[in-house]
Amino acid sequence: MVAEIICVGTEILLGNIVNTNSAYLAKGCAKLGIDNYYQIVVGDNEERLFESIRVGLMRSDIVILSGGLGPTKDDLTKEVTAKVLGRELVEDAVSKEHIKNLFHVRGMRDISDNNWKQALVIQDSLVIKNKNGTAPGEIIKTDEGKIIILLPGPPNELIPMFENDIEGYLRSISNNVLYSTMIKICGIGESKAESMIQDLIDNQINPTIAPYAKTGEVHFRITAKSNTTKDAKKLVEPVVQELKKRFGTDIYTLKEEDTLESVVVDLLKKYKIIVSTAESCTGGLLAAALVGVPGVSSVYQQGFITYSNDAKEKELFVDADTLIKYGAVSKETAKEMAVGLVRATRAEVGIAITGIAGPDGGTDTKPVGLVYISICFNGKVIVKECRFNGSRQKVRESAVISALNLLRIAIIEEYVKL
Amino acid sequence: MVAEIICVGTEILLGNIVNTNSAYLAKGCAKLGIDNYYQIVVGDNEERLFESIRVGLMRSDIVILSGGLGPTKDDLTKEVTAKVLGRELVEDAVSKEHIKNLFHVRGMRDISDNNWKQALVIQDSLVIKNKNGTAPGEIIKTDEGKIIILLPGPPNELIPMFENDIEGYLRSISNNVLYSTMIKICGIGESKAESMIQDLIDNQINPTIAPYAKTGEVHFRITAKSNTTKDAKKLVEPVVQELKKRFGTDIYTLKEEDTLESVVVDLLKKYKIIVSTAESCTGGLLAAALVGVPGVSSVYQQGFITYSNDAKEKELFVDADTLIKYGAVSKETAKEMAVGLVRATRAEVGIAITGIAGPDGGTDTKPVGLVYISICFNGKVIVKECRFNGSRQKVRESAVISALNLLRIAIIEEYVKL
Repeated sequence: MVAEIICVGTEILLGNIVNTNSAYLAKGCAKLGIDNYYQIVVGDNEERLFESIRVGLMRSDIVILSGGLGPTKDDLTKEVTAKVLGRELVEDAVSKEHIKNLFHVRGMRDISDNNWKQALVIQDSLVIKNKNGTAPGEIIKTDEGKIIILLPGPPNELIPMFENDIEGYLRSISNNVLYSTMIKICGIGESKAESMIQDLIDNQINPTIAPYAKTGEVHFRITAKSNTTKDAKKLVEPVVQELKKRFGTDIYTLKEEDTLESVVVDLLKKYKIIVSTAESCTGGLLAAALVGVPGVSSVYQQGFITYSNDAKEKELFVDADTLIKYGAVSKETAKEMAVGLVRATRAEVGIAITGIAGPDGGTDTKPVGLVYISICFNGKVIVKECRFNGSRQKVRESAVISALNLLRIAIIEEYVKL
Repeated sequence: MVAEIICVGTEILLGNIVNTNSAYLAKGCAKLGIDNYYQIVVGDNEERLFESIRVGLMRSDIVILSGGLGPTKDDLTKEVTAKVLGRELVEDAVSKEHIKNLFHVRGMRDISDNNWKQALVIQDSLVIKNKNGTAPGEIIKTDEGKIIILLPGPPNELIPMFENDIEGYLRSISNNVLYSTMIKICGIGESKAESMIQDLIDNQINPTIAPYAKTGEVHFRITAKSNTTKDAKKLVEPVVQELKKRFGTDIYTLKEEDTLESVVVDLLKKYKIIVSTAESCTGGLLAAALVGVPGVSSVYQQGFITYSNDAKEKELFVDADTLIKYGAVSKETAKEMAVGLVRATRAEVGIAITGIAGPDGGTDTKPVGLVYISICFNGKVIVKECRFNGSRQKVRESAVISALNLLRIAIIEEYVKL
C-alpha cells in the first residue's frame, strides 16, 4: 500500500517554513507499514493543485493532503479535491455547530462568511472533528477505491487529528506492521560506530539498521516489517542483542523517549547521588540540561557559572597561582574547579567544565574547541581533555554531552555493582 | 523564471529526517526573485527519479536536485539525470584529484571504486568543487535551454556550495530581485501584533508582510520584488517606518542576524553594565543564552543556579522566613534573589528567575507556568509576574525570553538618554 503526501502552502514554497508535516506524516505511514514514494509541495494554485492530486491518485493508493483548508479565499484544497473527484461540497451540520461553539468560547460574536466556508465538506466523506481549530479533516473513498485524506496545515491541529483519528483508520486498511527499536550511543563518533557494525549494515534486508547522528551521539534504529507486531519484534531482537554485545556501555539507552540527561538523572536518583555543576564556557548549558529533566530536584540543588577568573577563585576556591601558571582553560584549573565545587556545595559529585568555545580566544597551543571536563567524587578527581569542532554553539553543546556521558560512565564504574 | 526543487532520499520518505534542504533552497531562490511552484521528494529509485526529473524539466526553467550523489550503489541522481538528458558520464580530473587529497588528509589510504564513482560528472556540465565533501556539484544546461543543478544532500555540504557558487550563478540568470527587511518584536503576543497591523496585511501586494512566531517573539518580514535592489528597497522602507511607529520599543531589532540575547549583550556593552544571573526553574538557560553571545565576557562574569531553597539562602541571602511565608515561587523570593545576587556578585544589574516549570509541582494558587522575574539595578528592584503555557521546556524558554526582554526595556528606560 502506497501513500503520497501533498502539502499545500505558498509559505513552504517561499522557504519561510520548514515542511515538518511531510516528515511527520511519512513517519506515521512508515510505522504502519505504508510505503511513501513521493512527497509534493504545491502552492495555493488551482491548476497546479488539481494536477498534483490527479497524478497522486493515479500512482498511489492513498493521497494525504495537508494545508489549504482555512477560511480565506486562498485556501483551495477542499474545492480542488471536489473538482478532481467530480463531487459537490455540502454543508456539514456538526462542523457548523463546532465553529459556532468555538467562536462563542473565544468570545467572538461575528462569524464571517469565510468561516462558514469551513463547514463545507466533500459529498460522501467521513468528516473528522478538529479539536484544535475550525477546519475539519476528511477521509474520502474515491469511486476507484483510492483514499484521499484531507488534514489541516497547522501542526498543532494536524498532529492530534492524525494520532486520534487517522492513524487508527490507516492501521485498519494496512496489511503490514513495522516494529522498531532505537539504540542510543554516546562516546563513539558516527563513522567509527558505523564501521563497528558495517557487516550488519551491508547485509541488512529485514530488519534494517538506520544510523542517525546528533551532536555527540549516534542512534541506530532497527526496524522490521511483518504481518504482526510479534513477528516483527522477533526479527528485531537478535540484532539488538548483537549491537549490545558490540557497543557495551557506550549504549546509554534502548528507550526512544530517553535522553542522555534523563538517563543520567535516573542513575543519580537510583544511587541517591547529589550532583552540582560549575561551568565556564558552557555558561549554564549543563545545568539547564539536567534541570530540563522533570523531578531533578532530589539530585540537583545548585550550580555555578564562573565565567571570569575572579568568580572561579571566589566561588570555587581555584588558586590564583593555578590560573596564572596554567590558565583558565587547563587540566589543573578544571580539577580545582571540580574539587572546590564539592567543597562549596557539599554535593557527592561535582562536575566542572572550562574551555574555549570560540570564535575568538584560541591560540596555537590552546585552540578553539579545547575543553576540559573534570569530575570530583568519593575523594577522586578525573579530568578529560576534549577537542571539539564547529561553531561556538556546537562546541558548547558537545562539551555538555561529553560531560553528561563522563558522569554516566563514572557512576556506572563507581556505583553499579558488576 | 521558475525553479523546481527535487530532494532525493529514502530517509526523507521514511520521515526519519526533516527536509530542511527544500526550505533552504526555496528561500535562496525567493531571495533572487526566482519562483518555486513545486517541491518534490523522491527516493533512490531509478524509475521514479527519472520521471520526476523529466516532468520537472517540462514545467520549470530550473530543476535543482539535492542528494543521491554519494559513493554507494543507492546513489543514482547523477546517473539518472544523464539518462534523462541522453548524455554520458565522464571522469573529471579535478574531482578525482580532490577525492585523492581528501582521503590523504583524512589518513585513509585505500580508496574504494565506489569513491572514484564520485569523480564522474555529466558531459558538458560545469563542475562545482565540494569543499566539505567528496561529491562535486554540477550545473548543466540542457539542449532546450533549461538548467539542472545537482547538489550534495548533506546540509553542511549543500549550504556552503549554494552560497559560494550557485547563488551567484542564479543571480546572473534571474531578472528579478527581492529585497526584504526583518522586524523582530518581543513583548507582544502574535495575534495582538498581527491585529495591530491588520490593515497593512490586508492591503499588501508589493511589498508583502509575512509574520513568523517563535517562542515569546514575533517577526515580520517585509519583502518587495523589483528590477533592482535599490527600487525594491524603496518599496520596503515606508512599510518599515510605519511598523516602527506602531510597535515602538517592542521592536528589538531590524537586523536579520540579531537575536534578543545579542541585542541585550550589545546594550550591556554600550552602557558598560555588568550583569549577573540567579536561576531556579530555568536552571542555567538564561546564563547559557547570554554566554552564547561571543565576546560576552566584558559584561557577564558569573551566575548562580539555586534550585533548592538552601542554595537560595546560602548563595543569595534569601531570608528563610520569606521562603516559608511566601514560598520559593513568589514575588518576595524573586526580589530577594535579585537583591542578594547583586550583593553576592557586585554586578551592576542582577536578574533572577523563580517559577514552576512543571509538569508537576503546580497548585490552584500557583499553577504550572507561574514565573517571577526580578531585576535589581541602581538601588531599584522590579519584579514581573508571568504565566506561561506549554511543556516544561516551553515554560523555561518563555521565562528566559521574558527575562531578557525585561532587562532590555530596563536598560533602555534607565540608561538611554531620551
